[in-house]
Amino acid sequence: MSDNCLKESYCPVVSRDFNKDYGDQGFLLENGKTLPALTIRYETYGNLNEAKTNAVWICSPLTADAHAAGRYSEEDKKAGWWDELIGPGKAIDTDRFFVVCSNILGGCKGTTGPASINPRTQKPYGSTFPTITIGDMVHAQKELANDLGIKEFFCVVGGSMGGFQAMKWAIYYPDQVKRIIVIASSPRFSSQALGFEVVARDIITQDPNFNNGDYYNQAGPHIGLANARKLAHITYLSAIGMEKKFKRAQDQENRNHAVTYSTPFDMELPIESYLRYQGTKFVDRFDANSYLHIAHATDTFDLETEYGTLEKAFQNIGAQVLNVNLSTDWLFPPHESRRITSALLNCGKSVTSLELDTQFGHDGFLIEVGELGKAVGRFLDSHIIPEKGGSTQSMPVFHDQSDFDRISKLIPDNSRVLDLGCGGGELLAHLAKTKNATGFGVEKNIKGILDCLENDVPVIQRNLDEGGIADIEKNSFDYAIINRTIQEIRDPVALLNEILRVAKRAIVTFPNFGHWSARGSLMLHGRMPKSKELPYEWYDTPNIRVLTLKDFYTLCEKEGLKIETLDIQNESTLSKIFTALGLKNFGAEHVIATISKR
Amino acid sequence: MSDNCLKESYCPVVSRDFNKDYGDQGFLLENGKTLPALTIRYETYGNLNEAKTNAVWICSPLTADAHAAGRYSEEDKKAGWWDELIGPGKAIDTDRFFVVCSNILGGCKGTTGPASINPRTQKPYGSTFPTITIGDMVHAQKELANDLGIKEFFCVVGGSMGGFQAMKWAIYYPDQVKRIIVIASSPRFSSQALGFEVVARDIITQDPNFNNGDYYNQAGPHIGLANARKLAHITYLSAIGMEKKFKRAQDQENRNHAVTYSTPFDMELPIESYLRYQGTKFVDRFDANSYLHIAHATDTFDLETEYGTLEKAFQNIGAQVLNVNLSTDWLFPPHESRRITSALLNCGKSVTSLELDTQFGHDGFLIEVGELGKAVGRFLDSHIIPEKGGSTQSMPVFHDQSDFDRISKLIPDNSRVLDLGCGGGELLAHLAKTKNATGFGVEKNIKGILDCLENDVPVIQRNLDEGGIADIEKNSFDYAIINRTIQEIRDPVALLNEILRVAKRAIVTFPNFGHWSARGSLMLHGRMPKSKELPYEWYDTPNIRVLTLKDFYTLCEKEGLKIETLDIQNESTLSKIFTALGLKNFGAEHVIATISKR
Repeated sequence: MSDNCLKESYCPVVSRDFNKDYGDQGFLLENGKTLPALTIRYETYGNLNEAKTNAVWICSPLTADAHAAGRYSEEDKKAGWWDELIGPGKAIDTDRFFVVCSNILGGCKGTTGPASINPRTQKPYGSTFPTITIGDMVHAQKELANDLGIKEFFCVVGGSMGGFQAMKWAIYYPDQVKRIIVIASSPRFSSQALGFEVVARDIITQDPNFNNGDYYNQAGPHIGLANARKLAHITYLSAIGMEKKFKRAQDQENRNHAVTYSTPFDMELPIESYLRYQGTKFVDRFDANSYLHIAHATDTFDLETEYGTLEKAFQNIGAQVLNVNLSTDWLFPPHESRRITSALLNCGKSVTSLELDTQFGHDGFLIEVGELGKAVGRFLDSHIIPEKGGSTQSMPVFHDQSDFDRISKLIPDNSRVLDLGCGGGELLAHLAKTKNATGFGVEKNIKGILDCLENDVPVIQRNLDEGGIADIEKNSFDYAIINRTIQEIRDPVALLNEILRVAKRAIVTFPNFGHWSARGSLMLHGRMPKSKELPYEWYDTPNIRVLTLKDFYTLCEKEGLKIETLDIQNESTLSKIFTALGLKNFGAEHVIATISKR
Repeated sequence: MSDNCLKESYCPVVSRDFNKDYGDQGFLLENGKTLPALTIRYETYGNLNEAKTNAVWICSPLTADAHAAGRYSEEDKKAGWWDELIGPGKAIDTDRFFVVCSNILGGCKGTTGPASINPRTQKPYGSTFPTITIGDMVHAQKELANDLGIKEFFCVVGGSMGGFQAMKWAIYYPDQVKRIIVIASSPRFSSQALGFEVVARDIITQDPNFNNGDYYNQAGPHIGLANARKLAHITYLSAIGMEKKFKRAQDQENRNHAVTYSTPFDMELPIESYLRYQGTKFVDRFDANSYLHIAHATDTFDLETEYGTLEKAFQNIGAQVLNVNLSTDWLFPPHESRRITSALLNCGKSVTSLELDTQFGHDGFLIEVGELGKAVGRFLDSHIIPEKGGSTQSMPVFHDQSDFDRISKLIPDNSRVLDLGCGGGELLAHLAKTKNATGFGVEKNIKGILDCLENDVPVIQRNLDEGGIADIEKNSFDYAIINRTIQEIRDPVALLNEILRVAKRAIVTFPNFGHWSARGSLMLHGRMPKSKELPYEWYDTPNIRVLTLKDFYTLCEKEGLKIETLDIQNESTLSKIFTALGLKNFGAEHVIATISKR
């Protein structure tokens, strides 16, 4: 790499073409049709190691090209489309990985697509280009990967439609693909998204210049393509992002109201010129047939329909998965993306999920890469628990070792454990080490998620007050642990029942509000108690459900829960005396109980 | 009304035309241009009373016609588009009101629009039809209303673009319009909605058959109009509603995957045929020029830009307002709709707001009229507090009279009061009666809102944990009351500060967790206390912020709040003894305090 290149980007980048003629047999597509030959435009950043196992494969979204990262020369002002994520020392570190990105099959940026010349006819494919699938795109990329000599894929990464490809990579090549990162994607398009696709397609194919796709020797369907792009572009942004971008009132401030429109229907608002610019720019760089073919592959992608269930789709994959959704993405909305995580959990795969807060809508994965980059980087660094051999890291943070030891004693070796409100995953890491436990954590805060990745603990980002673990199948776990968290839950009874639906036993720990010092605080001082276990003020405590040990007994009785073990913790002498006297509720500072359904 | 007609609908309905030639002067539009004559197609249901004050004026949304309700004959199978809301004994009761609906200016359903014959040229207006505004639509309707002899508008009602018209009615005719109901509307289109409008407009005007709007003697821009409608139709539905309507997996179950598409880009999914049907159906019933003109009037509607601020727009209206938004409406999203309520509050108008839960998106106001109907009916029946003379109803529900009396004593006559967590508005009704107080309530539950309407108390539907009263201007109230609610709030400190931003003084009442019986429960029984004031279990109590009187003192000290009055309630003898002994925190069962900022 030249020292003169801009340091932050990989440089210089070289675009290359993979070319192969498939003879009479042709390159077989999933619909049974064939293509006579393949050309694939691609770029690589970094070097393939000797074992040929350090490849990170980038799957591009709908209209992106092979130029994912870096600069072609030091004079090159614009870096690749995911340059913030890929480069020397970046999340996808080109000093460490052999990173590859190619233009997708059906595209118009150097890879075989409808505008390519058919080598058999020497004419553009046009209307003769066969229908393709996401799977076809992956198979074509595999041809390139074979040619490059890649034996193992350290990771396959994709956002949006790139996420569709990444999932297919894991499904088709379960032994070779070790990790996938699926960003702002879902098991299929929502009905709403499909609706927009239908409209966009009709707009293009009903353009009089479309001519059934054979327009390469004449004016193309430019008006239709521009209008379809304007529409699609809106779906990539968020409502709140658009509102911020186009402040109508301010822009109109200096204009008279309602009387100055130069043409009957134009409003001369920034949003009009912005969308029209997006349309025109797209016509300049994209081919309508490519757009239709790739969009169609996206529209028909539906893992659930194809495999029966998502669990069946994923059942044989060998990859660990990082699944990321974006809060304001309404093209691939978070609740759709979460279904990927649910299915992976329910077929026992290793998955970590992340819910990124962004105002940029679907485009957020291209724009706001700060925390995404951190998560991707840590995921690529991590040795997630199930891979026991790989992990030699010691516990990074001391959390509450005595708690951990007490909980650890309650759990048999090799248990599968769910830890609700797992923070940075310290307890699970401890249980993995001491009990060879597997399983994962549930945590609502991004900091905890990133720490879990650091601690090699698989974790899903969820708010237990909102939906929680409803998507996890019953009896998926030997133990569910809810450690110092139950008192923060809005509906603790519902959650306890949920926990004992997904796990055979639950370990519940909570600070005892019936402890003598808590009682004393209220009795003697008339104030809501503060202590080591209850350090907050009444108005800012996360502990919105204060309970006593006796309350807990009553609840278990009422809900038909059996208390299998009860471990009472107390540090002070007085607590110990109360406990020794059999006054557990007075003596207990902190309670650790194992419960199950009667 | 014929007895043979279907009982639930007004019948028979007669469509009539209002016709007026405006001579050389013309009918003046807001942009200074004129129309030579007006024809307005309209329908009426019910009879105008002698005083001519019982008119309920229905403003139609974008593509609806004058046929809002009833049936033309007993054989008529399809009733008008809002028949569930309008009819004998219905929310908008035709036995009581003279209900009028007309086709809007610029339309193509009998009222003057671009497809009408210009009486001066005897040709369709086409491209010569002038740009119109929402205001022009209202002015044209006023011509009809004058012709009908209406002196006062009991209410003007409109959903979607009909809401735009209703607001303009209130602004233009402040003395005559007594009430308006604005449903699923906003002060202007969001940038996202405008974006879709830009695309739809380009799709139509770039159809080769559009011919600058002069297509009446030839094939019109049917393809463009159909595609624009498909797009718009998606924005009327919700994502979740579409997902339910088009269950892709099920529909595809019996088909082979990915290999059976009959044409390259068709997927043969129900969503495709559904949207195409919507497009075709629309072309059959609507004129492209009308669509463009009405859409343009909608796009340019922006009260904020037109009047400087929303408050200025509303400052002179005389109408009471019911503002309704729909939870899944993303064309007129709730947060945009709420701005209407905020502005009305901040310029001292009487407004009640309702946040209806629906899965039908924007179209919900046409589909799901159950609770909407109740609210509309009660609003039309109500005599909201500021109209003192009109209210002779007695207090309908006994709530906690002793509390009310104690609070009432704290408030000077004629105070302006905000009641947070007001339930059915009983306290405000009491204060209106005993202290001539004005103001309104804030309540999160629909039942409370409907009860408030029943009790003639203006109320806005809000969740104090989500946004709350951030939009209310400072010092808008003499008193804010938070009665038995503070302990249910996630961030009570922030809310107390908010309360003392919008009101000079706050009256806070809460059950005292420091009361002797609460202490005793925990001290003696080791259980979280239950009592008359604290009747819940620890796990289902809405009281997530339990506090004691002493905690309250400390908080006020810390936040710089002055306790102006302190009223301690106790019923039991022991409580009274504790209080007499000066042990307030022991004695107080319930606390009523007036606080202000130091």
